[in-house]
Amino acid sequence: MSEADTGAPSPEAGAYRASGRTVPTRARERARYDRELVHRVLDTSYLCHLGFVRDGAPVVLPTLYGRIGERLYVHGSTGSRPLRAAGGPRDGAGRGLPVCLTVTQVDGLVLARSAFHHSLNYHSVVVHGVARQVTDEAERRTALDAIVDHIVPGRAEDSRRANARELAATAVVRLDLDEVSAKVRTGGPDDDPEDLALPYWSGVVPVALTHGTPVPADGLAPGIGLPGYLAGAVS
Amino acid sequence: MSEADTGAPSPEAGAYRASGRTVPTRARERARYDRELVHRVLDTSYLCHLGFVRDGAPVVLPTLYGRIGERLYVHGSTGSRPLRAAGGPRDGAGRGLPVCLTVTQVDGLVLARSAFHHSLNYHSVVVHGVARQVTDEAERRTALDAIVDHIVPGRAEDSRRANARELAATAVVRLDLDEVSAKVRTGGPDDDPEDLALPYWSGVVPVALTHGTPVPADGLAPGIGLPGYLAGAVS
Repeated sequence: MSEADTGAPSPEAGAYRASGRTVPTRARERARYDRELVHRVLDTSYLCHLGFVRDGAPVVLPTLYGRIGERLYVHGSTGSRPLRAAGGPRDGAGRGLPVCLTVTQVDGLVLARSAFHHSLNYHSVVVHGVARQVTDEAERRTALDAIVDHIVPGRAEDSRRANARELAATAVVRLDLDEVSAKVRTGGPDDDPEDLALPYWSGVVPVALTHGTPVPADGLAPGIGLPGYLAGAVS
Repeated sequence: MSEADTGAPSPEAGAYRASGRTVPTRARERARYDRELVHRVLDTSYLCHLGFVRDGAPVVLPTLYGRIGERLYVHGSTGSRPLRAAGGPRDGAGRGLPVCLTVTQVDGLVLARSAFHHSLNYHSVVVHGVARQVTDEAERRTALDAIVDHIVPGRAEDSRRANARELAATAVVRLDLDEVSAKVRTGGPDDDPEDLALPYWSGVVPVALTHGTPVPADGLAPGIGLPGYLAGAVS
């Protein structure tokens, strides 16, 4: 599909190009392509759902990710099937694995008067592309730090970094942010005018992912208190 | 892959059969097949990530779902590309769309002393199968109620049900629970023994999806108070 067919905004500074894959057929007005929004949604989550094709069928697995600039990183065992398919140091080039990486934050339950208009408020980002194994050792280390810091900012440097054995067992794959879109729904229900007087409660139940009081592991070394970066994680 | 190859438990009453697709290559000990657990995970979420293949590439989209017994239901516009691919009333048989439907609940951030052992506590369910359009009108209505009640139990009957025009615009697809697995991680960090004395805080930050105080829509009909079923949604 050519750009002219998509009905989406032209590429501009600070925006991802809209493609046939990133322009939705439905709720097109909710699709966004600006980098700042995409980065913000990506940076306030740590869990993505990674889709790929295996034996012709789709597979969707939850996994952690990190972001450095316009690159996302996902890691796993060198024994994992999808990461092997993304190519690796041992087999050279890394032919790459077509993936779709999706991040969704739910912000509210939207209860309309009509069942039909029930919805969610949410922010989501969908990234299409080809995941490729990272073979450069410096980039691998930086990516692993980014994944840990994505869970809790500041954590990577306050942990024992991967040793040679662990690095050898870890596959890191990279997905460039190129064919990307965000989708956002906010606000109240969109009931039809003729339904507004119906005797049903209608509105939004706010939803948030909240973090509780950290629970220390058994056998912490003496004198290890809760680090400052974790006080910020509690909300 | 034959059953004998999987290393997974044999089928038993109350368990889904393990298949080549539902036995993970990694963290095999975390995979579960019992129906009660699968149902519980499915029933305490309302958002899934639905994966399918379009033009040979994977697509993963967030969407709502409902469950009735051993069937999951997803709905959307009759104009949406994946739902059209699942076949419909107008084109008869409904050839079906291979999908992977994944539901993930994050329960905690697991901060180990070593970066390598950082993890999440979570419950997830992965369903592989073929989604087919539902053409029976009674099943379509029951499925739509199930999707609304999945967001907030008790809500469907306290809303205006879909009229003929809305029903005609809504595609409902069904995915049978057959090739299904759950994965669960609980507990603290799995640090290596030689790392236990390292001077890094280690433990679990609990994570939960919480629901705030419902915000009424503008222009509620007079005298409509907060329904009882919403008091339960607030946590």
